[in-house]
Amino acid sequence: MRAEHVNPFISSLTDTFQTMLACSLNRGGIYLRDSESCPHEVSGIIGLSGITSGTVVLSMEREVALKAAGTLLMCEPTEIDSDVIDAVGEITNIVAGQAKAQLEQYNLSLSLPNVVLGRAHRVCYPSDVRPICIPFTCAWGSVLIEIGLAAVPEPALA
Amino acid sequence: MRAEHVNPFISSLTDTFQTMLACSLNRGGIYLRDSESCPHEVSGIIGLSGITSGTVVLSMEREVALKAAGTLLMCEPTEIDSDVIDAVGEITNIVAGQAKAQLEQYNLSLSLPNVVLGRAHRVCYPSDVRPICIPFTCAWGSVLIEIGLAAVPEPALA
Repeated sequence: MRAEHVNPFISSLTDTFQTMLACSLNRGGIYLRDSESCPHEVSGIIGLSGITSGTVVLSMEREVALKAAGTLLMCEPTEIDSDVIDAVGEITNIVAGQAKAQLEQYNLSLSLPNVVLGRAHRVCYPSDVRPICIPFTCAWGSVLIEIGLAAVPEPALA
Repeated sequence: MRAEHVNPFISSLTDTFQTMLACSLNRGGIYLRDSESCPHEVSGIIGLSGITSGTVVLSMEREVALKAAGTLLMCEPTEIDSDVIDAVGEITNIVAGQAKAQLEQYNLSLSLPNVVLGRAHRVCYPSDVRPICIPFTCAWGSVLIEIGLAAVPEPALA
């Protein structure tokens, strides 16, 4: 994976939080995921397929999911109900959709978003894929985006 | 979702277990997922996209994951390590790939498989998608396949 594949996800995530949620994200250092990495309690997952295939996981602390959903829905949810799950899935979908538009050379399409819940859940990738992780913090808590793509063929010369 | 969308996943799953793992699956009754449903401890997830989009979740008890991986790899794993995770991801990929071939009218492509671990994890769908669940039992334990597809457009008349 190269920077040109990751940057669209970073800009899409920060733009989405800023414009839809009025929430500024502060980016931490990029790292390759090792097996000990753990996501936060709520993870939106969306599959990508096209000339390459992959997955995007947007993992956030419970408080971030509640505040983000509350901002979208103009309410104050206190538990992870179906509205919060829909909001997390939709945010994941928008982030992946905006990034996809910047990666048009791969003709990507998106699967449905799933949301995984559980304090001790782990989302694992095939061992030949090492996802790139970018942590963020915001006023509500921590967010992590992971992008795992299968080896991307070089574009043909024009 | 109609039976013609679900049957390819049922036949693909039973065929894959029979031919790759020499394991016969006994099918239980089909049901629509309600929010209380819980998957087993190990879940393979793969996204589908094309003329429709969706997700397949293949959830299995820990013992099934260990025995299935052991059969594929000709070893006897006792914990869910990266080999077992790869095996569960690969089985999910094969099941989805075979079913996709029988649904060619939707021109589906597959994302990378992820594997979710955790005793108390839940994999949720958008609230407008009600996945169809088909439980199975085998000599190793219980397996559940869930298929969630967005509303499928009617095929155009020829």
